[in-house]
Amino acid sequence: MRVEIWSDVACPWCYVGKARFEKALAAFPERERVEVVHRSFELDPGRAKGDVEPVLTMLSRKYGMSEEQARAGEDNLGAQAAAEGLAYRTRGRDNGSTFDMHRLLHLAKEHGRQAELLQILYRANFAEERSVFSESDERLVELAVEAGLDEAAVRAVLADPDAYAEAVRADEREAAELGANGVPFFVLDRKYGVSGAQPAEVFTRALTQAWEAHTPLRLLDGGGDRENAADAACGPDGCAVPRD
Amino acid sequence: MRVEIWSDVACPWCYVGKARFEKALAAFPERERVEVVHRSFELDPGRAKGDVEPVLTMLSRKYGMSEEQARAGEDNLGAQAAAEGLAYRTRGRDNGSTFDMHRLLHLAKEHGRQAELLQILYRANFAEERSVFSESDERLVELAVEAGLDEAAVRAVLADPDAYAEAVRADEREAAELGANGVPFFVLDRKYGVSGAQPAEVFTRALTQAWEAHTPLRLLDGGGDRENAADAACGPDGCAVPRD
Repeated sequence: MRVEIWSDVACPWCYVGKARFEKALAAFPERERVEVVHRSFELDPGRAKGDVEPVLTMLSRKYGMSEEQARAGEDNLGAQAAAEGLAYRTRGRDNGSTFDMHRLLHLAKEHGRQAELLQILYRANFAEERSVFSESDERLVELAVEAGLDEAAVRAVLADPDAYAEAVRADEREAAELGANGVPFFVLDRKYGVSGAQPAEVFTRALTQAWEAHTPLRLLDGGGDRENAADAACGPDGCAVPRD
Repeated sequence: MRVEIWSDVACPWCYVGKARFEKALAAFPERERVEVVHRSFELDPGRAKGDVEPVLTMLSRKYGMSEEQARAGEDNLGAQAAAEGLAYRTRGRDNGSTFDMHRLLHLAKEHGRQAELLQILYRANFAEERSVFSESDERLVELAVEAGLDEAAVRAVLADPDAYAEAVRADEREAAELGANGVPFFVLDRKYGVSGAQPAEVFTRALTQAWEAHTPLRLLDGGGDRENAADAACGPDGCAVPRD
């Protein structure tokens, strides 16, 4: 069974929702047969690299919050994170483009290190002092190497803005097609969706329901009234010879 | 709706089956809403790069065919290809590792050129005189550039055997999980499967059936007896403020 999670590293509810989902998954009896895939969703897709501002300033500027309201919102999110055992800096965090991080997450996927990198990026953005948003690539290089990626490969991706750009855009188009307006957005076997950082028990129910609905592929062929062409195929033991 | 096609460039039935599927798709009323994705499947995954031999020799050696049987098999496949309007060289083709081609197809996917490259590779392998199997990378570089890929990016992938290797292996693991023992193997919305180069009308029926079964995601939440947490999410207009 496959669970796809659309999220953004800059999204506090994604950070919290991921922990809640993982709590449910850890207790799910069939967890070994659940594949989890990260999908890209930028909250601010037009934002330029290096266009960085403090989160509190962004909240005031973009949503017209007073400084007091912005701080209270961050305090609330910090409390939600703390309830999941997550560190969360409620003051002094930055906001900026996450496009390069999503591109690196696609590189990481090719090397089987996506889950590691995503966790490291969340931790770095929400819990650590050094900003992950910068004109310079050094911070992201360091974090990606920590996740087990090859430094030269990471630098090559960061130096080429087209690398994995189409993969990020394709994820974002798919999110729109699936009806996701916000993140986190969880899709189980392309059949069930869970929107938002729901409590762990909602994820438990979703996993159970999707698992029960999970059916093997239904194989279609030409029907019983004609010769089955399913063996017009090649396998490790060679190709079928056409019959006529 | 998404159709995933597991196939190998060295597989004659995949070449024929692709044409049959595309015939059905071209006449399918909802074709604009069908996304087609290539998935990797190597018929001979252990084969070393540069380990190349003529197809006819391979058929005799591996499957114990007489030279006459091997030729007749190729003639038969050539006739099936011709019936779909495909060129097919029944003599003098080579066989070898397709691993690098699959790695390039994953690179091409990131740049939105996968369908182009796959078509070019099939044509080159089955219809053209110059072998696509070689210790040297020059032929593959030429074909990938023809498909619209950047030459330096192609060379970088070919020079690094780890690049996209995990993507190829992941596709192959998924094929096994879905029960595919041979190719071509078509999976529609992860719900219906079609094995082998079936006649176009089988694909038409499969597309129609999968389209009718295609349902929007069913969104799950905490149920009606409690506050819906679906808005514990972030979107382009900001993050919901926790209520407590």
